[in-house]
This record gives sequence, C-alpha cells and structure tokens, in this order.
Amino acid sequence: VSRPVMRAAAPVFDRTISDEFSVGVDFGGTNLRFAAYSPKDGVLESVTLPSRVKDGRDAVVADMCAGIRDLIARHSKSRKLKGIGMGSPGPIELPGGLLHDLPNLPGFGGLELRATLEKNLGTAVIIENDANAAALAECFLGRGKTLGIDSLCMMTLGTGVGGGIILQGNILDGMNGFAGEVGHVNIWTDGLRCGCGGHGCTEPYASATSVRRAAKDAIATGTAPGLAALAAKNPDFTPRDVGLLAEAGDADAIRIFENLGQALGIALSAIVNTLNLPLYLIGGGLLNAWDLFAPALFKELRSRSYIYRLTEPSAEDLRTHREGKTYIEKAELGGDAGFLGACLLPFTTWPEARR
Amino acid sequence: VSRPVMRAAAPVFDRTISDEFSVGVDFGGTNLRFAAYSPKDGVLESVTLPSRVKDGRDAVVADMCAGIRDLIARHSKSRKLKGIGMGSPGPIELPGGLLHDLPNLPGFGGLELRATLEKNLGTAVIIENDANAAALAECFLGRGKTLGIDSLCMMTLGTGVGGGIILQGNILDGMNGFAGEVGHVNIWTDGLRCGCGGHGCTEPYASATSVRRAAKDAIATGTAPGLAALAAKNPDFTPRDVGLLAEAGDADAIRIFENLGQALGIALSAIVNTLNLPLYLIGGGLLNAWDLFAPALFKELRSRSYIYRLTEPSAEDLRTHREGKTYIEKAELGGDAGFLGACLLPFTTWPEARR
Repeated sequence: VSRPVMRAAAPVFDRTISDEFSVGVDFGGTNLRFAAYSPKDGVLESVTLPSRVKDGRDAVVADMCAGIRDLIARHSKSRKLKGIGMGSPGPIELPGGLLHDLPNLPGFGGLELRATLEKNLGTAVIIENDANAAALAECFLGRGKTLGIDSLCMMTLGTGVGGGIILQGNILDGMNGFAGEVGHVNIWTDGLRCGCGGHGCTEPYASATSVRRAAKDAIATGTAPGLAALAAKNPDFTPRDVGLLAEAGDADAIRIFENLGQALGIALSAIVNTLNLPLYLIGGGLLNAWDLFAPALFKELRSRSYIYRLTEPSAEDLRTHREGKTYIEKAELGGDAGFLGACLLPFTTWPEARR
Repeated sequence: VSRPVMRAAAPVFDRTISDEFSVGVDFGGTNLRFAAYSPKDGVLESVTLPSRVKDGRDAVVADMCAGIRDLIARHSKSRKLKGIGMGSPGPIELPGGLLHDLPNLPGFGGLELRATLEKNLGTAVIIENDANAAALAECFLGRGKTLGIDSLCMMTLGTGVGGGIILQGNILDGMNGFAGEVGHVNIWTDGLRCGCGGHGCTEPYASATSVRRAAKDAIATGTAPGLAALAAKNPDFTPRDVGLLAEAGDADAIRIFENLGQALGIALSAIVNTLNLPLYLIGGGLLNAWDLFAPALFKELRSRSYIYRLTEPSAEDLRTHREGKTYIEKAELGGDAGFLGACLLPFTTWPEARR
C-alpha cells in the first residue's frame, strides 16, 4: 500500500476536552507566534517573537524550542500536554518536515524541521504547511465551524498565495505534503514568471506583492495619476493604500482589484471543477479588499465553471446556507488562523500516521 | 455535519470473495456494456448492446433493466448478488444520479437515473460518473493494482476529456458528484469555447474531437499537404489516421499531438500542484498516440510544476516505482475500465452512504 495522501480516518475534534492542552507555533518569515490551547477553553496564552532569520536557522530553532518549552512549563501544571504542532512556510516535505529552498527564508533549505525540533525538545512534533494549518483552523474554529461544513479549500492571499484543502476534517497533505498549492494553478498560460519557477500561476496575479507590482506597472504607463500621486507621497505604499484609493473611486486602482478578482475566479474555476467542495474561503491580508475584487471573481467563476453554475447559491441560500450549494466566502480567523491551526494539529491528527 | 465529499472510510476490496457477484453497466452514448463480476474470478460474462438513444430515455432504461435482469438471473444460481453499479456520462448529480443536460444524450436531462432503475428493478443501484468508475477500475484492477498505489487521478481522452480522482481507494465524488472534472481545468485563458459553456478548458485541446478540429484548422491554412491529402481521401478521418500520419513523419500531424501534449501538461501541472498524488493516468481512445504527445506533456509539466520537479522519477525510479515520486503513466484497462469500475462499485462502496 502506498503512502497515504490523507490520514486514515476522519478526525473527531472533541471540544469538551479541558484537561489537555497543546502548543502550536506559526513559523513565519517575520514572526514566530506561539500559543497554548485547550479545546474547551481556547487560547490559554499566546506569545509573539520576531523570527531571527538573519541570525541563521540555529538561532530560529533555538527560539522555537525555548518558546515551546516556556508554554509547556507554564501550562503543564494544570493540564496534560497533548502534543506540539507547527505550521511552516512551504514547500515543506512531510512527514519529515524537510524544508526546501524558501525565497523568504534563505539558508533554511535542507533543514529537517521535525527531527531537529524533536531532538531538541525530546518529544514528538507535528509539522504542517502553514496554509494547510490555517485551513484546518478555519474548518474547526472559523468559517467551517460557523456553517457546519467540514470540507473546504482556503486560499490565503499574502506575500504569496497559499492554499489548503480539508476533506471531511482531514488535511489533504498529498503524497509528500505538497497538496493544496492552489497559488500555483495556471491562470494565464503565457503569463508572468512565478517564484516557483513556473509562469502564469495564480500567485503573481493575486498576492499582496502583485497589487504593488500592478500599481507600479500602471504608474509606468504615465496614465494613472492617482496611483502616481500615492507613490510620490509614499514610495512604500501598501496594497491597503491602493485599496483606499480604489474605494475613493480611482479607476486605475479599481482595475487592479478587478484583475485580481478575475485571476482568483479563473483559479477557483479549476479548483471547483476538480474538487466540487461545499466551501471555498479567501483569507490573508488582502481580504479587506473583498468588496473590490469579489464581483470580478464571481463573474469569472460563473462564466468558467458549469459546476458552479449548477450549484450557485441563491440569495436565500446565502442566508440559510442550504446544503448542496457552492459557497465562496471570507475566512473568519484573520492572522490567527496559522497558530490556531498549529494548536489543533495534535487534537485532530495522529502523529503516528505521519512517521 | 455537511454532506460527505467521499465515503467515510477507505474501502477494502477483498479479492478472495468467490460466492458473491455484482452486475456493472457502462452507460455510453453508443453502447450499453454489461458485465457480471466476481472479485476472485473476474468477469463472469459481458454483454454489449447498442444505446437506443434515438428511441428515447424510456427505451434505454428498459434495455438497461433487461440486461441487468438477464445477468442476475444467469449468475444468481451459483452466487449471491452483492449489488448493481452503473457508470453514466456526466454531469450527473449524486447520490440521486440526476442527469443534467448532456450534449451526447439529448432528452436525458432531468432523468433521476438511480430512482428510475431502482423502481424498475426493485433493488438498490449505485450510480457513478463514468470517468470516476473508470478511475476506480484502474485503481483496483489496472495500473494502480500493478504499482500498488491506491491514490490516483485519471484523465480519459475520448470524445471529451473525462476525469476521476481516487484517494486511498475512495472515489472523490465531491459534494454533488461533480468532483474530478479535470477536463474543465482552464489551460488557455482566452481559449476555445468548451461544451461546458466555458472557454479555454482542457477538453477542446485534448480530446479526440480536438484532434480532428486541429487537423481541419491546419488544412484550412493551405499549408498542411499531408493532412489535406488524408482528408481528401477520407473525409471521415479519425484521430488514429492523424496519428499514423504523424508516425510517418508529417510535421503538421506531429504538431497536432505536440499541442495536445502541451495542453495535457498545463492541465496536469494544476492538478499535480493541487493534489500531489503518486499516480496520474492517461486513458481513453487517444492513448495509442502516447508516444506522440507524451514528450510535450512532460516538458510542459516540468516547466510549470515545482512539485513535479521535486518529485520527478529518475530512470531507476521508473523501473522500481520507488515511493514518494510522481508517476504519469498509461492506463491499462482500455475500454473495459468503464464497466469494470461499475462492477467494482458494490464491492468497494457502501450504498447506504449514498442515500
């Protein structure tokens, strides 16, 4: 029998557990976010430290282990440790947690994250791709919980475009932990180069980075006065600044988010036609621009996916969330999804299945 | 809890069962193919009838029921009937087997296939999308069995491009039975209209129909003398005729299959990046052109999918089928995959889960 692409059975997340806790870590290029978590009582404590990436991987690993030990020490007096979970930027090979070369984490390629942490801590650690962990959190604690839906695909629009797929409460890891990389679904065949080495992927059209790039491209044409004024005033302008300009009616800024919505709609059409899930979530920093990009997203999706057309919710369905319809919605947990998902890993997966 | 996107647990296909049999039907636009099947002894008997689509759906349903009854009558003397399975062209809504409007089956839209058959037969019938049934057969009886791999995605290149996804021995049905429609993954954003109502899907670039269309387009340019001579000699030329011309060295015919391979490579890059499965199979009538299209397929996939690049099998891996690599291979069961998959349904799924 070949390596399982998911864990063997659907997990049951028991929300009544109060005598056990987990420690979860969201390993990001900017911050390490730690939390101690109990299913019944939620987040017991959370801690954020800067990621000392420039000091090298040993320094970062030392910080991870110190943070985990601190939380274990403080909470194991009153509760029993269920396990430790960590979400890491991909590509990360599972079950060993082997990091491949990461653009945002120079020097981390080749690190066997799980073995390294386990050797330091003397206990088991469950590693996941950070976007998968975030999707798991949305399933059990976020939008999925709100709607009573346990199968979903989440796209996280940040510096890149992350993705995670949950099927009946299980993370779809795929053979090597690489499943769910929906940011690298082709949308424009002869399109822009992508950080993954491909071209025409969703990521260079639907990330925070893409909004800045599109704004600069528009400014370079000399026909986008609003964006030019923004960049002149603040060369480090953010996607949020472009969003505010769009909300104020600037046509060039509006077009940037329309193009982003179209890109997401094309990508989602492929995903909807492949997976036919009840729920697709958009999360990440660009979510505050939902009203700017969503109309173009739905228009494109409707024109490309007959499965969506057959299952598009009516206005009434959007209120009642009737079963059998395809819902495209906003994620609920914001930036907390990563560490919450890491906290859930020990309660919803079997570490022994990942050896 | 929402409607399951897969059955609840991984099925065990018990190959030692000899005292039970199933009846499977592959419902196609041209033929109805029936078989009686035993896990231990394989196909006990198979029957092919023409699909009397022109006589209307009642005639076709009557033929289905008569064929099923005949096989049950002949084989239930020596074995116990385990169940009845049927593969039907999609889009077909599960679990009810509601047929939507099918281009090749006019007049069948709105037919509740399962209820209709069950009412006629007085016993339970399990309905599946035909491409899903074919993928299931390849998993348990075809290439998956040969390699010992139980998770795969199969693309069937026929009149259209069908798709089926098997995860740990389970068909991924999705919420409504529409999962696995990988023939409708976007590959050329502003591309050709597709029968699904979308545009730029894989299907109009990688089906048997697309080979004929591409040949006609090439002839229309006036610069494809070999293809023009073929069409003049035989206006009803087949994709196989174009393949023979390509094998004989005709550059225009060669290009048609290179373009088809490129289309498949783009589609597969999206699927590989989304699912990270150990095995992807190409099946259907165009499979005999594998040598003509496969090089372009692999070239495109390599350039677009970093997951494929990280997991591409070496020449040694292709001999030993080492775990952890991504294999793109030929399906083994040919045109029998459809009815074999239908025969497997009662042995590998739980009808009660589909109610």
